[in-house]
Amino acid sequence: VKVVALAGGIGGARFLRGLRAAVPDAEVSVIVNTGDDITLYGLRICPDLDTVMYTLGGGIDEERGWGRTDETFTTRSELQAYDAPASWFGLGDRDLATHLMRRQMLDAGFPLSQVTAALCERWRPGMRLLPMSDDRVETHVVVDDPQTGRSRAIHFQEWWVRHGAALPASAILAVGAETAAPGPGVLDAIGAADVVVLPPSNPVVSIGTVLQVDGVRAALAAKPVVGLSPIIGGAPVRGMADACLAAVGVQTSAQAVGRHYGARSAGGLLDGWLVDSSDAGVTVPGVEVRAVPLLMSDLAATAAMATAALELVLG
Amino acid sequence: VKVVALAGGIGGARFLRGLRAAVPDAEVSVIVNTGDDITLYGLRICPDLDTVMYTLGGGIDEERGWGRTDETFTTRSELQAYDAPASWFGLGDRDLATHLMRRQMLDAGFPLSQVTAALCERWRPGMRLLPMSDDRVETHVVVDDPQTGRSRAIHFQEWWVRHGAALPASAILAVGAETAAPGPGVLDAIGAADVVVLPPSNPVVSIGTVLQVDGVRAALAAKPVVGLSPIIGGAPVRGMADACLAAVGVQTSAQAVGRHYGARSAGGLLDGWLVDSSDAGVTVPGVEVRAVPLLMSDLAATAAMATAALELVLG
Repeated sequence: VKVVALAGGIGGARFLRGLRAAVPDAEVSVIVNTGDDITLYGLRICPDLDTVMYTLGGGIDEERGWGRTDETFTTRSELQAYDAPASWFGLGDRDLATHLMRRQMLDAGFPLSQVTAALCERWRPGMRLLPMSDDRVETHVVVDDPQTGRSRAIHFQEWWVRHGAALPASAILAVGAETAAPGPGVLDAIGAADVVVLPPSNPVVSIGTVLQVDGVRAALAAKPVVGLSPIIGGAPVRGMADACLAAVGVQTSAQAVGRHYGARSAGGLLDGWLVDSSDAGVTVPGVEVRAVPLLMSDLAATAAMATAALELVLG
Repeated sequence: VKVVALAGGIGGARFLRGLRAAVPDAEVSVIVNTGDDITLYGLRICPDLDTVMYTLGGGIDEERGWGRTDETFTTRSELQAYDAPASWFGLGDRDLATHLMRRQMLDAGFPLSQVTAALCERWRPGMRLLPMSDDRVETHVVVDDPQTGRSRAIHFQEWWVRHGAALPASAILAVGAETAAPGPGVLDAIGAADVVVLPPSNPVVSIGTVLQVDGVRAALAAKPVVGLSPIIGGAPVRGMADACLAAVGVQTSAQAVGRHYGARSAGGLLDGWLVDSSDAGVTVPGVEVRAVPLLMSDLAATAAMATAALELVLG
């Protein structure tokens, strides 16, 4: 079976580990959000690509969910001693090597997709990681400055990491998305897929950003698509998806997110929508909804979620 | 008293610490070699500037002579795990923060001279560090490839660090020096100086490279210049200066290096030449030579060298 998954960071990465366990022989291509990417100190940092790569490659810090295992933060403490403007960002010493390698290869002229493939030669994730685009797309968040009363756009990472998504957001913009070409292999992978899965990633800044890349939505319209709710019982399982949903006027509920994605038959995305057992009763017009346990508490539970998702649309 | 010193890395930096102790009220400007600079992973690494900055700022590893105290090499071990092509270069985790800050400021449009001044706000070296040029100059070494029998040019750092200067060099080239403009303040500092000191730095790749920057030699011709021999008893005090001297056809002796610099009155550089007590008897036509202990064994000994150097030409 050929599977395409769209992915953001922690939630998506953990789900993919379950998917790999559920269907080890499947040919899986992951289209990864790059809108969270940020350039710091001249380094291109790709949080979602790296989280997926480290998680599938066995290098992730399981507790934090992001960054490397056995990480140290020596460089960061020195950056703080320099009063570096971006020392709020958690750059680990091990993680830095990935960004340095990426910088070296980008400077040598390789596009992000080839850089990602080269990095994956070390990590061997067991599936193909495709950046959604080799072009630069950056998610910016429009916030109101409480001091001046005026709104300004800040980088998603600044909003998410530095401010803990606590500044009310009035809009979330994927800057550059309107001209970004899909990365090499992205549309082909969708075209060849038997099924497309939307993991329980952030529906706005992860999945939503991938969907803004030219041609992705149109390609999905020809394929069975199943999604897993990142919201359980009215709250995000992890992260601060509620703040993102609020910014786009969507309630924080499994039903609202399912309806936000919408039915493929009605111009939306979904054929199937998996919600948590506690959200049984959710309806999304035109979409087959099933309730199963959606907590990724361990690999077996996560694999069961992946199996349920595939079964919902492939039968 | 206003002093200008030309400097390379370890030897120059240690001497400057003695100079600061000898004449704490002097206004010292250091023109630092940037020919050793190398770009790795997109980061501009300035070994001589950083060695001088860390040494004067109390951040140097005293044992190694380069890099930061209490250094760790976590990022480097990860780069090796990626089979990074330049993992032979000793990039420490603390040191990396300096290169990241420099990259950030260079990307923001500041020239190296301003970046250096900003970094020195943290390190407070007690003297003004002036990169010899804001333009890119890179020292390359022409070596014979024993496999092919053909010669090729490699970056100085590759020759020095990776190969330990063990590949015989047929030429040493400061690529870019012929068009490099002196850094802001360089010629003014020389013009205002009461005396110019050439520390016991490498006469070829450190002092020699600074001298190739347009206008520096001409400016020195108007000032009393005193040099300290980096060679004691026919061997470099530290480092592999002999390999560099061989490449330019100069013997490894205090006398040969003094004559290589030459007398200012005869179109060379020197008014005074300080050699080690063990080299008493050395003569350089037209130059006042004095023999004193030249081992920088501790701060007091180094300060005494600096005092002797200034006395030799200022009386």
